Amino acid sequence: MAPMLAPELRFAPRELATADENAAAIAGLTEGLDNAWIIMCAALVFLMQAGFAMLSAGSVRSKNVSNILLKNVMDACAGAIGFWSFGYAFAYGDATPNAMIGDKYFFLSDWPADGHDPKFFFFQFAFAATAATIVSGAMAERTEYVAYILYSFFLTAFVYPVVVHWGWSGSGWLSAFNSHSDKLFDVGIVDFAGCCVVHMVGGVAALWGAIIVGPRMGRFVPNAEGVMVVSPMPGHSIPLATLGTFLLWFGWYGFNPGSTLAISPAGYGVTAGMAAVNTTLAAAAGAFSSLYLSWGLTAAAGDGVWDLSMALNGSLAGLVSITSGCATMDPWASVIAGIIGGFVYYGASNLMKKMLIDDPLDAVAVHLFCGMWGAIAAGLFSSEERMADVYGSTKHGLFMGGDASLFGCAIVGILAVFGWVTALMAPFFLACKSAGILRVSAEDEKEGLDLSHHGGGAYNLDEKAQV
Amino acid sequence: MAPMLAPELRFAPRELATADENAAAIAGLTEGLDNAWIIMCAALVFLMQAGFAMLSAGSVRSKNVSNILLKNVMDACAGAIGFWSFGYAFAYGDATPNAMIGDKYFFLSDWPADGHDPKFFFFQFAFAATAATIVSGAMAERTEYVAYILYSFFLTAFVYPVVVHWGWSGSGWLSAFNSHSDKLFDVGIVDFAGCCVVHMVGGVAALWGAIIVGPRMGRFVPNAEGVMVVSPMPGHSIPLATLGTFLLWFGWYGFNPGSTLAISPAGYGVTAGMAAVNTTLAAAAGAFSSLYLSWGLTAAAGDGVWDLSMALNGSLAGLVSITSGCATMDPWASVIAGIIGGFVYYGASNLMKKMLIDDPLDAVAVHLFCGMWGAIAAGLFSSEERMADVYGSTKHGLFMGGDASLFGCAIVGILAVFGWVTALMAPFFLACKSAGILRVSAEDEKEGLDLSHHGGGAYNLDEKAQV
Amino acid sequence: MAPMLAPELRFAPRELATADENAAAIAGLTEGLDNAWIIMCAALVFLMQAGFAMLSAGSVRSKNVSNILLKNVMDACAGAIGFWSFGYAFAYGDATPNAMIGDKYFFLSDWPADGHDPKFFFFQFAFAATAATIVSGAMAERTEYVAYILYSFFLTAFVYPVVVHWGWSGSGWLSAFNSHSDKLFDVGIVDFAGCCVVHMVGGVAALWGAIIVGPRMGRFVPNAEGVMVVSPMPGHSIPLATLGTFLLWFGWYGFNPGSTLAISPAGYGVTAGMAAVNTTLAAAAGAFSSLYLSWGLTAAAGDGVWDLSMALNGSLAGLVSITSGCATMDPWASVIAGIIGGFVYYGASNLMKKMLIDDPLDAVAVHLFCGMWGAIAAGLFSSEERMADVYGSTKHGLFMGGDASLFGCAIVGILAVFGWVTALMAPFFLACKSAGILRVSAEDEKEGLDLSHHGGGAYNLDEKAQV
Repeated sequence: MAPMLAPELRFAPRELATADENAAAIAGLTEGLDNAWIIMCAALVFLMQAGFAMLSAGSVRSKNVSNILLKNVMDACAGAIGFWSFGYAFAYGDATPNAMIGDKYFFLSDWPADGHDPKFFFFQFAFAATAATIVSGAMAERTEYVAYILYSFFLTAFVYPVVVHWGWSGSGWLSAFNSHSDKLFDVGIVDFAGCCVVHMVGGVAALWGAIIVGPRMGRFVPNAEGVMVVSPMPGHSIPLATLGTFLLWFGWYGFNPGSTLAISPAGYGVTAGMAAVNTTLAAAAGAFSSLYLSWGLTAAAGDGVWDLSMALNGSLAGLVSITSGCATMDPWASVIAGIIGGFVYYGASNLMKKMLIDDPLDAVAVHLFCGMWGAIAAGLFSSEERMADVYGSTKHGLFMGGDASLFGCAIVGILAVFGWVTALMAPFFLACKSAGILRVSAEDEKEGLDLSHHGGGAYNLDEKAQV
Repeated sequence: MAPMLAPELRFAPRELATADENAAAIAGLTEGLDNAWIIMCAALVFLMQAGFAMLSAGSVRSKNVSNILLKNVMDACAGAIGFWSFGYAFAYGDATPNAMIGDKYFFLSDWPADGHDPKFFFFQFAFAATAATIVSGAMAERTEYVAYILYSFFLTAFVYPVVVHWGWSGSGWLSAFNSHSDKLFDVGIVDFAGCCVVHMVGGVAALWGAIIVGPRMGRFVPNAEGVMVVSPMPGHSIPLATLGTFLLWFGWYGFNPGSTLAISPAGYGVTAGMAAVNTTLAAAAGAFSSLYLSWGLTAAAGDGVWDLSMALNGSLAGLVSITSGCATMDPWASVIAGIIGGFVYYGASNLMKKMLIDDPLDAVAVHLFCGMWGAIAAGLFSSEERMADVYGSTKHGLFMGGDASLFGCAIVGILAVFGWVTALMAPFFLACKSAGILRVSAEDEKEGLDLSHHGGGAYNLDEKAQV
Repeated sequence: MAPMLAPELRFAPRELATADENAAAIAGLTEGLDNAWIIMCAALVFLMQAGFAMLSAGSVRSKNVSNILLKNVMDACAGAIGFWSFGYAFAYGDATPNAMIGDKYFFLSDWPADGHDPKFFFFQFAFAATAATIVSGAMAERTEYVAYILYSFFLTAFVYPVVVHWGWSGSGWLSAFNSHSDKLFDVGIVDFAGCCVVHMVGGVAALWGAIIVGPRMGRFVPNAEGVMVVSPMPGHSIPLATLGTFLLWFGWYGFNPGSTLAISPAGYGVTAGMAAVNTTLAAAAGAFSSLYLSWGLTAAAGDGVWDLSMALNGSLAGLVSITSGCATMDPWASVIAGIIGGFVYYGASNLMKKMLIDDPLDAVAVHLFCGMWGAIAAGLFSSEERMADVYGSTKHGLFMGGDASLFGCAIVGILAVFGWVTALMAPFFLACKSAGILRVSAEDEKEGLDLSHHGGGAYNLDEKAQV
């Protein structure tokens, strides 16, 4: 590049005339535009960390607020270090074509080369941190910080990157972008922004974490007949939870549209716009379906409650549900995906309670179950035209007149991710448990983690400050 | 478009040489840049929903927090569904040139075509949701959720889109972009980002809503002499209100600069930059004028109070005041518009109280009154040079040496919007009132809506969490 | 520019063929892209005001929340007015080449010209406001609003712009972009996004402010042996402080990458991406080092505490530490800079307490000390390749095989900024003190500033709202 000029001179118009001069200018513009787009999208995805943090903080009891916030802050940090050191290399450093795992660019050593440029790492890091942070909610209010940070590093440095390699890279056996061999069912998985690759990875880890660490003390108690029932443990601040949800929704506009990974080639801009529209409609539809379903059921039982947390989690359910298909589905199909996503969330949340698995944030219901549904939805509803445009494939959704290839890829992807993450994370959490570093002591849990582990409560409200 | 490559290959530089190859690359860049710009701006406008939600939540009493948050979340969702199903078609689907209302693209069925692309819908949806959410504040703490969600859908699906059609579309009788017939006063209204089209629509609906639902219990009480006086009902959390204001201000950088709707043509970038500068200066000036005016009046009365809420609402007043003229006014004029906006807000807020209209968030003062002032300001201060650039018109502001055309358009626009929204929304709210679904019962209002309608309070602060 | 078309027509594709038509389109794209990039980055930097506000509010006691929020809101406003009226002219209006201070473009009068376009002002204003707001934290809980607003205007209108002129402008004696005379040590200071120019300016002002206004009542109290010890005054809301930190981190992605000031020329995009990556890694490394250092020291003393505030301030320390070198350092070096930044913060924070200087937010430790470290780090670690690319210089970091020029420039820059800001701000604060407008009365401080100055407490939590 030419050295930078003084700031106030840095915008002088460039004189162009010949085709060669134009071509040089176009090269600069292309690099600039793609970088600007991805940096901004990645920044929005990064802000989802703040969204998760606020949602989590608001959803736990006030005695465990600093604890969950620390975990959220530090998994962003562990994600950065973990993905820089090993994760990126495992995900995208394919020295050996068609290997199951990448094997160069550790510590970004030979970097940047080709498409492996900084913006791409930045965007991918933000995704890794998102996958990691999903777990914090499911294990909230009883998990040791030390186990959590180990988990966070392990996931972002190894577990998640391998799935990325499979699902997205040019060497992935599941990937629709595999350029080394035949694609799975002649198409590969349509997982545009990562229902399988991101949400299910976090969701499966969250499931095993929640099971293995066990429910919070007093969460499930026997009633008079000896049947275990759920004891409500409402979060301490609805405004924080709402803020967090809005920040997540906002960040999703980086997550889904940004998954074009470039915007200068013809058609990419419209694809990104389509992703934004589908993201919006699915979120809205999901919020309506959970809220009205829960209202209807409470109304049927006598007294209808408009439960804000249903609207919040419903919108997140809708957002997850469209994360695979946002680039290849039509708006009407996104509305359907969102509506069903709201039902899936509601059902899964109750199923978890039935199974006596304690997930304080419903992270498993939102990210695992709706992640599965979202991957399937893309297999059912991806349109012929959009599949041709985005993936250059004649395959399309089962409900759109296509054959079962896309649906099949979704099912294989779901099973593979479930299996892989289970195979690594269940033993990991069990090992932490055996080592006695997974769960805080009963006294500490009763007292609250903030006082017992973090030097004090999260709030210090002076009586006098309240008139 | 060419199918997408594997992520790590998606940035390979393209070799160009001939003018035709260059032209093809330029077409991709143009599409990409305009999409990137509008998607990001629309995402910022979407975040204004979070801003309104936090501002509203902070400004109500703690017993009604979940209620207002639910309304804010759901009007974003209703806006999405309402604008997708009908609103966009009414606003921009002009099958019949110069009709009073659009009539194609329902449910985005024939879409995308021409300029009707996804990013444009996304941006316009975010505006619709903004118009809707303005009302929630004015009717806070006593309105039924059911009436609110009906209103929200009605406004985004019909009331607001018609105004958009009039004021902005290529078929609008008020529009400066009318391409089918003579423009109003030979120029059409200068309402760049929507003082009339957005803020007044929300503001007029808010006014009638506040009047028809009536004041909160105990808001206006007779004093010893039998004169009705205002009983203070301070919001429950200043930090939330401040956060909300900052998020709104931030979102305004998508709202005003993004109203270029494209940024690749020559001159659009500078226009967007100008809008950002004017937005900043008006916000700052508005905050100063309200804050210092209120301080001066309290100081004159004996004890000067630096009232943060005056700074917050003053900055919003300034932001609304520059929303029409941000692209066509000079920075110094923006400062003046903001200062006067601060006064307008202060006066209108007190006028509302004098008239015993209870608007917990001063939404009417900010959005309706400053919206009117902003439309007028653009008619007074739009510069000759900027009008020629942006609108290709020789008309300019009355105080800038121009004739009264711009001012006249503003007045006509204000009257038209006031009339239209009144004609629809006043009967709508009255009908809800007759049907008994507008206002919660007195007991529920006393107890608080969160406990009576939403299943519990918004806060659960454990004593122990506070050291 | 050509007048704007109707919104729904504004995206019609342009037909191009000849090299001249291509060149014209490229000019529009270049303007559009650079504006889009800088407007978005500036908006992110603006959001740092919200970040500071939330961090500050959360870190003070609940009786002083409205006060600190008002200061944060109003220094954004004072920054806008101050930088518009005088600041920009002093910083960049170099009518006289190589003058110590700029001297045209007051009130943006002759504007826009050349590179002095709106987006550039917008970005620079956001930086000015950042410099100003740093001080609010160090002087929190005891400073009069009037003194604060005067300070804020003085800093953004004069003190800070002069440093900008020196460090960044084409006329600056310290500047690496000086185009009028020999550069300092043949290279000028590498202060890409402003460790010296922004953070140290705020940090030095914060230091003198904290010293001259004196500690909060009861902050330092004699123990049984008569030795002064620190009395803990924990902030009132950890969630607000965490939110603020995340918003700051997010805004830094506008601050550092956006300091390219353009993105269309070849190489700028990758530079911006590199800045984003380095910013991320340094933040993460800083959080780890402070958190683990403080944990280690408390564990060594008997009971290890995982202190969230250490993670928060550590990440900010890392962010400041990479602000100079983000464009010229390699990722591994950013990790080192961040780790050391975390130590610098920890040490400086304790040093301040030892010296009985009361800085409620550790603003001096974060912005002044890490600002110095960041400037030095760029002098030590800037790579040969990146220095050639970005600055067109053969000079590079002392630890990277270069000579001491960069290091020398950093030292000179640190001394110059320390001297200049001290020479102006120490007398300024002393003058305020003499005039009796610097500090609130002891009764008001005890009662809390919100009740005594701002008309009421920041919170009104109804018992009933808490189930």
